[in-house]
Amino acid sequence: MKTAKSNSKTNDLFARLIRGDWSVFKKSRSDAFDGHEVLDLGSIGEALLSRRGEASGTMLAQRLLDNFEQSTPEAQLEFFLKLVKKFAADTEKLQNAIDRYQGTPSGEALLRLHNAAEPRRQELIRRLNYSSGGTHRLIKMREVLLGFVGDHPEFASVDADFLHLFMSWFNPGFLEMRPMDWSTPANILERLIKYEAVHAIQDWDDLRNRLDPVDRRCFGFFHPQLAEEPLIFVEVALSTDVPTSIQKVLHPERAPIPANQATTAVFYSISNTQKGLAGVPFGSFLLKHVIEHLQREIPNLDTFVTLSPVPGFARWLAHERANSQSEFLTEEIRESLNMLDVAGWHANKKKAETVRIALLDSARAYFLRAKTSRGAAVDPVARFHLRNGAELHQLSFLGDVSEKGLKQSHGLMVNYLYRLSDIERNHEAFVERREIIASKAVTGK
Amino acid sequence: MKTAKSNSKTNDLFARLIRGDWSVFKKSRSDAFDGHEVLDLGSIGEALLSRRGEASGTMLAQRLLDNFEQSTPEAQLEFFLKLVKKFAADTEKLQNAIDRYQGTPSGEALLRLHNAAEPRRQELIRRLNYSSGGTHRLIKMREVLLGFVGDHPEFASVDADFLHLFMSWFNPGFLEMRPMDWSTPANILERLIKYEAVHAIQDWDDLRNRLDPVDRRCFGFFHPQLAEEPLIFVEVALSTDVPTSIQKVLHPERAPIPANQATTAVFYSISNTQKGLAGVPFGSFLLKHVIEHLQREIPNLDTFVTLSPVPGFARWLAHERANSQSEFLTEEIRESLNMLDVAGWHANKKKAETVRIALLDSARAYFLRAKTSRGAAVDPVARFHLRNGAELHQLSFLGDVSEKGLKQSHGLMVNYLYRLSDIERNHEAFVERREIIASKAVTGK
Amino acid sequence: MKTAKSNSKTNDLFARLIRGDWSVFKKSRSDAFDGHEVLDLGSIGEALLSRRGEASGTMLAQRLLDNFEQSTPEAQLEFFLKLVKKFAADTEKLQNAIDRYQGTPSGEALLRLHNAAEPRRQELIRRLNYSSGGTHRLIKMREVLLGFVGDHPEFASVDADFLHLFMSWFNPGFLEMRPMDWSTPANILERLIKYEAVHAIQDWDDLRNRLDPVDRRCFGFFHPQLAEEPLIFVEVALSTDVPTSIQKVLHPERAPIPANQATTAVFYSISNTQKGLAGVPFGSFLLKHVIEHLQREIPNLDTFVTLSPVPGFARWLAHERANSQSEFLTEEIRESLNMLDVAGWHANKKKAETVRIALLDSARAYFLRAKTSRGAAVDPVARFHLRNGAELHQLSFLGDVSEKGLKQSHGLMVNYLYRLSDIERNHEAFVERREIIASKAVTGK
Amino acid sequence: MKTAKSNSKTNDLFARLIRGDWSVFKKSRSDAFDGHEVLDLGSIGEALLSRRGEASGTMLAQRLLDNFEQSTPEAQLEFFLKLVKKFAADTEKLQNAIDRYQGTPSGEALLRLHNAAEPRRQELIRRLNYSSGGTHRLIKMREVLLGFVGDHPEFASVDADFLHLFMSWFNPGFLEMRPMDWSTPANILERLIKYEAVHAIQDWDDLRNRLDPVDRRCFGFFHPQLAEEPLIFVEVALSTDVPTSIQKVLHPERAPIPANQATTAVFYSISNTQKGLAGVPFGSFLLKHVIEHLQREIPNLDTFVTLSPVPGFARWLAHERANSQSEFLTEEIRESLNMLDVAGWHANKKKAETVRIALLDSARAYFLRAKTSRGAAVDPVARFHLRNGAELHQLSFLGDVSEKGLKQSHGLMVNYLYRLSDIERNHEAFVERREIIASKAVTGK
Ligand SMILES: [Mg+2]
Ligand SMILES: [Mg+2]
Repeated sequence: MKTAKSNSKTNDLFARLIRGDWSVFKKSRSDAFDGHEVLDLGSIGEALLSRRGEASGTMLAQRLLDNFEQSTPEAQLEFFLKLVKKFAADTEKLQNAIDRYQGTPSGEALLRLHNAAEPRRQELIRRLNYSSGGTHRLIKMREVLLGFVGDHPEFASVDADFLHLFMSWFNPGFLEMRPMDWSTPANILERLIKYEAVHAIQDWDDLRNRLDPVDRRCFGFFHPQLAEEPLIFVEVALSTDVPTSIQKVLHPERAPIPANQATTAVFYSISNTQKGLAGVPFGSFLLKHVIEHLQREIPNLDTFVTLSPVPGFARWLAHERANSQSEFLTEEIRESLNMLDVAGWHANKKKAETVRIALLDSARAYFLRAKTSRGAAVDPVARFHLRNGAELHQLSFLGDVSEKGLKQSHGLMVNYLYRLSDIERNHEAFVERREIIASKAVTGK
Repeated sequence: MKTAKSNSKTNDLFARLIRGDWSVFKKSRSDAFDGHEVLDLGSIGEALLSRRGEASGTMLAQRLLDNFEQSTPEAQLEFFLKLVKKFAADTEKLQNAIDRYQGTPSGEALLRLHNAAEPRRQELIRRLNYSSGGTHRLIKMREVLLGFVGDHPEFASVDADFLHLFMSWFNPGFLEMRPMDWSTPANILERLIKYEAVHAIQDWDDLRNRLDPVDRRCFGFFHPQLAEEPLIFVEVALSTDVPTSIQKVLHPERAPIPANQATTAVFYSISNTQKGLAGVPFGSFLLKHVIEHLQREIPNLDTFVTLSPVPGFARWLAHERANSQSEFLTEEIRESLNMLDVAGWHANKKKAETVRIALLDSARAYFLRAKTSRGAAVDPVARFHLRNGAELHQLSFLGDVSEKGLKQSHGLMVNYLYRLSDIERNHEAFVERREIIASKAVTGK
Repeated sequence: MKTAKSNSKTNDLFARLIRGDWSVFKKSRSDAFDGHEVLDLGSIGEALLSRRGEASGTMLAQRLLDNFEQSTPEAQLEFFLKLVKKFAADTEKLQNAIDRYQGTPSGEALLRLHNAAEPRRQELIRRLNYSSGGTHRLIKMREVLLGFVGDHPEFASVDADFLHLFMSWFNPGFLEMRPMDWSTPANILERLIKYEAVHAIQDWDDLRNRLDPVDRRCFGFFHPQLAEEPLIFVEVALSTDVPTSIQKVLHPERAPIPANQATTAVFYSISNTQKGLAGVPFGSFLLKHVIEHLQREIPNLDTFVTLSPVPGFARWLAHERANSQSEFLTEEIRESLNMLDVAGWHANKKKAETVRIALLDSARAYFLRAKTSRGAAVDPVARFHLRNGAELHQLSFLGDVSEKGLKQSHGLMVNYLYRLSDIERNHEAFVERREIIASKAVTGK
Repeated sequence: MKTAKSNSKTNDLFARLIRGDWSVFKKSRSDAFDGHEVLDLGSIGEALLSRRGEASGTMLAQRLLDNFEQSTPEAQLEFFLKLVKKFAADTEKLQNAIDRYQGTPSGEALLRLHNAAEPRRQELIRRLNYSSGGTHRLIKMREVLLGFVGDHPEFASVDADFLHLFMSWFNPGFLEMRPMDWSTPANILERLIKYEAVHAIQDWDDLRNRLDPVDRRCFGFFHPQLAEEPLIFVEVALSTDVPTSIQKVLHPERAPIPANQATTAVFYSISNTQKGLAGVPFGSFLLKHVIEHLQREIPNLDTFVTLSPVPGFARWLAHERANSQSEFLTEEIRESLNMLDVAGWHANKKKAETVRIALLDSARAYFLRAKTSRGAAVDPVARFHLRNGAELHQLSFLGDVSEKGLKQSHGLMVNYLYRLSDIERNHEAFVERREIIASKAVTGK
């Protein structure tokens, strides 16, 4: 809205809008969006932020989202570019606010500065949320945006605004933890099948097998505006010991145990569902809520533990084996690890035994000694649980002999233990001193 | 946390916390809070913002809110002072961000500046919201804060942070409009009695009279976190004409009409309930939702109109009568208005007739010509509805002969008309050009 | 439908019905029902039982109920007379079935006999239940019927049919026990005010006082077809001892105790709500469900006891005092009881003490020795609780000093104790051997 | 309870029960039931009907049902035999009632006779219903009973008692019609897969295909006591014409139409689910409720029609073809029908055409002229819909080319039309005069 030209164009649109002439907005996908419509998408945004937005906000928001969703990727890209350029902070106003603050750094001046530094697109996003279903549609819009960010680093600031608002809107205080079971509506359950990210759910029988037996639980976080979409969910097996094999946990023929005989709750899968909410932390809060819930429901439980994949292990190990200078592998270990290259090694008891010790030794190095260039733990799942205050509790050789399990970690699985009395101390040791908290069984000390 | 001393004190608290020594927080009101506890309130805040907050956020948030609510007003004041001084933006970091932005005003530099300018208390408030019931408790905390603001103008910036977050959290997209009627839970209905701000509800019989008849409706906005608290509600009478007297509308003996015979929906009362949400706009959205809902429910309706009080009229008129230079009152009108000083004038038909024309003429001046020092319409209710795009439709002499009605407006009531096709145009005329949109019946033109 | 004439009349009605000519049924009350319409009411009944009823059952049922409810008492009486005469069992068919059974008393012959002996009105009532809201309307119809039974003993058989079906339909297995509290819908709560039969609820404040405090509970039985009508409800006070005064239990200023500190649940009021369900037993089942529920909710509870009125005591005592031959009153007791005739005796400590022992002695006689002509306990509340297996636990002098309490029992109240391990034995002693189970405190042995 | 011996045995059991000695009832299946336990099953029944049943009814009912379900078929048979012999009417009491009625056939005598003729097992069944989940368990008990009835005609009278009570309990006035769709809980939806009796549902994808598209609907009747079990359900396709092929209706790739474009609702499958409710009519009521519901939901609909199988046709035709004297088949038709014996005839256009006319002619004879020995229509589905007042509307050659369709009816399907204005007349013509109401397209007249 800086040049006379765009102003007049926009004003003309407004005039038509006010007359109720909605033909300025294209509706159907068949009217493929050209340059003209791209202008429109931005223009609706301007209208929404203007005084007209006060009177017709919901309708304008609806319209912008409809148009965005029907646009071609090119038109969507144009729209995001507009968000970068035209919906940033007003630079003149910001400079004034800086000057004023530098003059007198009062609370009022600071407030004014903070407001002036807020990109206009934040308010635009807030207003888009007026429309019915707006929250979910904004999540989908950010998903589209994230697809462009790789090629368009300038979109990072737009993404930051989405994230800022989503962090506020998806504050844990607004989420509801809900158990899901076989009496949950089918349209929600099918999302579990769709989104399960760790151990794929084959079909409805497999799903039922994870929900219906008396020793199984599943919990998700829901936001009131996305009533049918769990944002994240965790699958739980009740057990009498700490399991070491996912195939045993999920065995379709296993005999369920009565819940009140269980002593151990095993979190064997935790999945986020909304790409557009990347960066909003749910996992840690969900686990804590679930532990609290289970303690109340089944007072007998005394152990809360995961059965987790080790997604980065095979890649890391390949890299170390290729590196003759690796500090992590002795010659002897290298020798034994060669067995990994023999197809079907894991299904042959003798071959498997050959590799066991070397693999577990390598795993110890991977977890306890290896670091990223920034000095962090290499394994992303480890980082998540250690940050949450869990302890690396046990390494399980051939814990996951599925194709995926063999590929990503040569079958290795691990347990992270949530010992409630230690969580805060562990968390602090990890985030403050980068200590990897691990049991004696793992450290060997 | 700038000085070593406070750091060490705080660290000591942390140490005890980590050891599980919760006695550092006082719980019961009987341990009246002294200087020491005031420190604690701030210290919990620091803990909540620190890395410990990640592990124990919910519990710390709970504790801070418990302590705050049990504190003396003095201790609460101290806490707010701390929010001003210790939980503002980090000035050093902010200066760096300003310098960087002045150097290169990139998107990234702007983002950093915006973040640096955000007071730390915003994140504190977000984390307080983690605790169960946190949203409602934060609203109550702001209510306390607003009680101090008059004497403490420095709290305005703290209040701005509350408001900023509440605007985001109470975005209309997160609110649910719910009809309320005689089958609504009693604990919600009693809030209608408590919060009704326009025409007081005498008792449960009066309440039933406003909810249960087939030609009455009531709607409220609810937030998922405050399931039992309507944030705002509007009471509606279905009618066959535009009413001019609230006593007739609420007459306990009137005969209800079948809903499908009604042509007119009358909004005769609209009340906000949460002082702590002052400044978050709900009314305009609620009215629009309600109109939409009623159009679907009762297709016969063609008129949506208020029956509204004129809260500022009597005061304004007294002022003008006292001002012999008033541009609004002729000598003749002044003469007639003297009858207002005769007790019981309104109940005497003849006396009332004497004053009618003069009062309506004065009312016309009040609505159409009088302005505040800033040039706005004098009447706050008029400002609300005109800004929403309604039209000042009709003046009703002796529309409210209750004590309150006579006192605030000599019995005058008015109707604002929401004509859907004109809303956007009216809104714009009012906000852009300060035009008072009124019917010919009012303007007399 | 025995004579050709009525048949032809009826057939004519059917013909019109089939043509969709519903004018044969009068709808509005203003068309007051005369002899002709009475015929109609019976005729709809015949249509409903006929083959036409299969196709149009719901509509015919609706119509009959509408007409019945709009009829004058005279027309309703006519309808019940018709139920007696025209909708009894088919006597010819019944005689055949008897003959056949006398011939060969096979299972099949018995079944045929049972069916033939079933009055046709049972099926009529079942079909009336097809219509929406039919169950509640049939209850109301029986309420009307019960109003006539005194003057029309021949209606007893019609009433027996209603009761037979209601016993089946309101089988405890179909009822749902629901807690009611301050978050219960207002339209249900107002029924508590309306139906409370023991200690009248003054207003909504009184109601709230009985529901909302943490040491109060209320439970009702609901039938799925009467979702807003509790069939029976009981009010419960949680306490640390067995109370002796209803005024103390209901004192508006008393301090509530935390539920988990309570050891005693006091049932201080139990009320049936539907006159039309007289004779269907709910109370015993409700009490047992409530005790089970409370045991789960508050494991600390170890005593379940009533605080009950003694509705028949004053009348009985007056009768005995008037009878100079009474076996229950000694001369000394008679003397002391004279104080009862002094107005305000109960409010005067000294006077009250004078009468205490004599009154309690008389009460002992009333409960333990007095019998009805059939040999049963005199007090109806006693019969109810003793039959349920409770024990007469304690007599409370001046337990209810309300006007009603003084009038019906000179202020006497009693506690019945439900000791779970004894219920079956007590019940059996009472129903089989007419033993009055009472504590030593009562029997004095 | 007739002989001293059984009485004393029973009394002994009671004594133990009263002492709380529940060991008299065996609990686990492993204690296989022998003669002794069979006695127990009957004895619990006696206890339940006795005075003890008043105090401990729910518990005794629970126990009897537990024991019954864990019993061997032999023990269950014994129990049913006991119901025949020991829980029939009391013959002495019955004879007295007959005598009294023969003496004076008053209303009271009739009532007494009816009561005396009611088998004691009716009250037993009512009391079994006290226990939680009792209704569903009694349905299952009758299912077991029905399995014995073939070999034990004497059980017919026991079955009649179950049916008598179920007819009363499952009165349409107590049922709730509920839409089911893709948001229905999975545990209910899996029952649709299990119980679909007409066109088998292959898997969850097939199910979703029948529920989720905008032009599909599904409705069921539910009883409040069986919240997760639809008693009957009907699947509906919305369409713009009357369909003739089930494969087209269910085609997984068809394009759904918007509901408001549909003019025709097609009931293409209706299934009962509870064998134990055989004989309780639901179908007719459900269809009428569904039609009413759809009329309100989609005012555009003007045609309500089935697409129905012809389950008896192939069998009937084989019989007629084998009968050289058949009055229904001409020589020419016989000739053409020979093609039916050629494998794969239906898939070959030319072969199919050869048989078309002959098959449709035979179908006309099957529907319009053939009768059972009792003079009824041969086809059971036809009997159901004609009795409901529908019209046989259209014959569809090769309407169902599934294996089942070819086997039972050589692929024939038919439509029954529910024309609302004709339902009552059609129903009456069918039930009173055995007229087969059919369209001209079918009758050819
Ligand atoms: Mg912000
Ligand atoms: Mg019966």
